[in-house]
Amino acid sequence: MESLKQRILKDGRILDGNILKVDSFINHQIDPRLAFDIGREFYNRFAGVRIDKILTIETSGIAFALCAGYHFNVPVVFAKKHSGINMSSDVYQSKVHSYTKQTDYTISVSEQFLSSGENLLIIDDFLANGQAVLGLINIASQAKCKVSGVGIVIEKDFQPGSKILRSLGIRVESLAVIESLKNNKIIFREALKK
Amino acid sequence: MESLKQRILKDGRILDGNILKVDSFINHQIDPRLAFDIGREFYNRFAGVRIDKILTIETSGIAFALCAGYHFNVPVVFAKKHSGINMSSDVYQSKVHSYTKQTDYTISVSEQFLSSGENLLIIDDFLANGQAVLGLINIASQAKCKVSGVGIVIEKDFQPGSKILRSLGIRVESLAVIESLKNNKIIFREALKK
Repeated sequence: MESLKQRILKDGRILDGNILKVDSFINHQIDPRLAFDIGREFYNRFAGVRIDKILTIETSGIAFALCAGYHFNVPVVFAKKHSGINMSSDVYQSKVHSYTKQTDYTISVSEQFLSSGENLLIIDDFLANGQAVLGLINIASQAKCKVSGVGIVIEKDFQPGSKILRSLGIRVESLAVIESLKNNKIIFREALKK
Repeated sequence: MESLKQRILKDGRILDGNILKVDSFINHQIDPRLAFDIGREFYNRFAGVRIDKILTIETSGIAFALCAGYHFNVPVVFAKKHSGINMSSDVYQSKVHSYTKQTDYTISVSEQFLSSGENLLIIDDFLANGQAVLGLINIASQAKCKVSGVGIVIEKDFQPGSKILRSLGIRVESLAVIESLKNNKIIFREALKK
């Protein structure tokens, strides 16, 4: 998605440890018109695929999931994050490991919002190690839902997330794929190598 | 906002302790077309008011702030919630008391996303005791921003939040105002009494 890549080049900042900071338009301050265009791009990429519901995870996935849901005209469900296990019996839960924070957390979705047989599109802002998306796939599987695809705003190609997801046979569409952040320079993967 | 009220009557549930549960379309599962209409309604209510930025708080304010931001075509900033004090020197912070959970938490916004003199519209999904919005107003004041108004999706008239905000001279626009949840019945405040 060219407008997204240009925005990343313009406003993204590289921090130590291969971290791309995009909090001025993606995950602290959000540009709503860009988010809306991102939602439409997901809709175009998954055109013709049956999607009954969008599934994401709080916090920074919500804006893009909502905009995708607007274009697909389907409900958006976000998994809640918390520490520890919620003892409630009416939620699907999955444990997620955060490599960034070196901790585990639990994500949960009320059973009533995922019905057996539904086709889900999972949306998230970042894909690096893929742990959060794997947690959502685990929850989808508990609910007997089908994951029709995964839509990612920014993928880090040099981390294993997308490889893991594709090895599970899951279609992943990433709107900007970062090949390298070395030497303080943002390099996108070329479309041809996709 | 009539379509919102009808949806609350159709899908809202009343739990013990004056709690209105709207997690099937507002704060766990979200209806994106309704959220978009809510954003437009905020835009209409604050037509003619100068708004440079939308300020909200994670998690469930984000969807509605984003949709308002889309119509105003201004950036959306969400305050992050965490326990304890963040020692970072480049954030504005405020302590918020949660009556629901009987705990305090801290909200923070990076200094770089609020500039002196900006006119803010604060958006949140619920207004009950008003503590979260007061925390956002405190942050706006630290940043020398002006709060041009507060937009609320669902206000509980029988709790003191809106009275406190209006006593500070702040314009509050609530799209659905609940007068009572007694006897397991949702009663909206009539427009005339506003």
